Amino acid sequence: MIQAGIYGYGNLGRGVELALQAAPDFVPAAVFTRRPGQVHPLTPGLPVLHENVLGKAAPHLDVVILCGSSADDLPVQTPACAALTSFVDSFDDHHRIPAHYKRVDRAACLAGTVGIICAGWDPGLFSTARCIAGAVFPTGHTATFWGPGLSQGHSAAIRRLPGVLDARQYTVPLPGALDQARGEAAALPDTQRHRRICYVALQPGADPAAIEAAIRQMPGYFAGYETEIHFISSAQLAEEHAGLSHAGRIVSTGRTGQAGEHRHQAECSLQLDSNPEFTGSVLVAYARAAVRLYRRGQRGCRTPLDIPPALLHPDDGAQLRADLL
Amino acid sequence: MIQAGIYGYGNLGRGVELALQAAPDFVPAAVFTRRPGQVHPLTPGLPVLHENVLGKAAPHLDVVILCGSSADDLPVQTPACAALTSFVDSFDDHHRIPAHYKRVDRAACLAGTVGIICAGWDPGLFSTARCIAGAVFPTGHTATFWGPGLSQGHSAAIRRLPGVLDARQYTVPLPGALDQARGEAAALPDTQRHRRICYVALQPGADPAAIEAAIRQMPGYFAGYETEIHFISSAQLAEEHAGLSHAGRIVSTGRTGQAGEHRHQAECSLQLDSNPEFTGSVLVAYARAAVRLYRRGQRGCRTPLDIPPALLHPDDGAQLRADLL
Repeated sequence: MIQAGIYGYGNLGRGVELALQAAPDFVPAAVFTRRPGQVHPLTPGLPVLHENVLGKAAPHLDVVILCGSSADDLPVQTPACAALTSFVDSFDDHHRIPAHYKRVDRAACLAGTVGIICAGWDPGLFSTARCIAGAVFPTGHTATFWGPGLSQGHSAAIRRLPGVLDARQYTVPLPGALDQARGEAAALPDTQRHRRICYVALQPGADPAAIEAAIRQMPGYFAGYETEIHFISSAQLAEEHAGLSHAGRIVSTGRTGQAGEHRHQAECSLQLDSNPEFTGSVLVAYARAAVRLYRRGQRGCRTPLDIPPALLHPDDGAQLRADLL
Repeated sequence: MIQAGIYGYGNLGRGVELALQAAPDFVPAAVFTRRPGQVHPLTPGLPVLHENVLGKAAPHLDVVILCGSSADDLPVQTPACAALTSFVDSFDDHHRIPAHYKRVDRAACLAGTVGIICAGWDPGLFSTARCIAGAVFPTGHTATFWGPGLSQGHSAAIRRLPGVLDARQYTVPLPGALDQARGEAAALPDTQRHRRICYVALQPGADPAAIEAAIRQMPGYFAGYETEIHFISSAQLAEEHAGLSHAGRIVSTGRTGQAGEHRHQAECSLQLDSNPEFTGSVLVAYARAAVRLYRRGQRGCRTPLDIPPALLHPDDGAQLRADLL
């Protein structure tokens, strides 16, 4: 059985714990956190330890699954883990991936460990689909749609504004953009593929007009997007917007034939009742691959693009060839 | 530029030739065939050689892409190629894959070559999707649907019956079975997921009733399936049923949560105007991976389950991380 540490215990950490329980070849070994007194795992008797003792515990762990936030935690925690043992994270700040990769790869190569970053569904599973589509259709088009679903990053961006008590942001794909992708148009920019719906609870005395303007102008998050803003009470927010569902779709088109007369279309879609629980399940599959890579003598940082599908699955090669090919 | 030989020049061989022309890093080097006089490639000046000289030509080829039939050609040709150089095939007789793997792996290990079998869309891309779904949802369900589209294997099985001049068989998924898969039912058997529509041209004097009975009773092909049989003239067959389009869909469902209260659904679908041209494009992507595996010192037989997505794509790792993750 693979001994897995869970580093960070919010929604994602709990999703990982559930996925470890469901996997036939894993046991949760311990939770590591900044606030051990506040963490109550689902697994009876599972030790909850301060993150400071991760170094001491590492020799007893086959892999650490990092469940912190991409904004604040993973840029520090993943390289720190890479210096200790095998690791896997679901770092999802697309623009900062090359820098994160570099930091983690350096730490892993120095320490002689191996692990996988960006092992969620996007980046992660959807990245592998985009890679295969690009390889098979060298002159094709691929467009990715996110939602309808809750975006943690955009919700947090609104919550950081002064005067905001709490907020949820839903990302919704625009149907016209989906039709255009299926019609083989080159992918529209993000701002024209999605709209954003925000539910915001204000602190007493905050100015709704000023906050609405601040949201609409936020570069990289809302500027340029069709954005809908609703101010509601924090009670209503908690009651009606507690769900963590999400969805996504990739549409790829390509042409073959002497005059490009044959059209091909590939689609992959996900509909998830719980984004953190699904992402936790993906992380555990990639944790299995990380442990196997280490046993094969590989070292350094990998991403899902580097991982053979067979390494994710508990069965061995002969069984997979008989059952899945 | 990767020098690729094309072994066999029917619809699939021509599809591979088109895909080699479209790929940024390949050149078609030669066609190998049993009947060089009858083969006329699309690429001006492309040598057409008898299959007997493949051994002599092999040192000048980086990879051979096998385009023969799984029934008669590949069981002999792929091991023969594996004894010479890197190779890739799209062997698609699901039940005989473990035996084919064994023969090819033995030949490749003895000769110190490496190559990939079953590199089409099913087996192939769909196998990788089934593997990932099984890894992420250990207690989930996955069902595969083929069609609507032309099945080469079933068409050939009808053509082998005495009294049959020509035939085409379309595989069509049953909508009720698709709903059931989306509703998380365990996969129904093949016979209850698909129906079969046959267009048959008879030889003069053949008995339609006897041939209809022979088709309906054919084990492994039609027995147990809802089967529709239409007798038409060979002129009508040629005119109305010359298309090579196909389609497929994988539906996976899984549950997470303490009481399995969260439901997740993943779907992958393909709609292909030309099955052989799409399969040819897939073969070329896996040929790129085979060449890279050889350069990394790997030897033996692989399947798509063993191949990291990044190896399929012409771009290097840093570029892929920046563009696709």
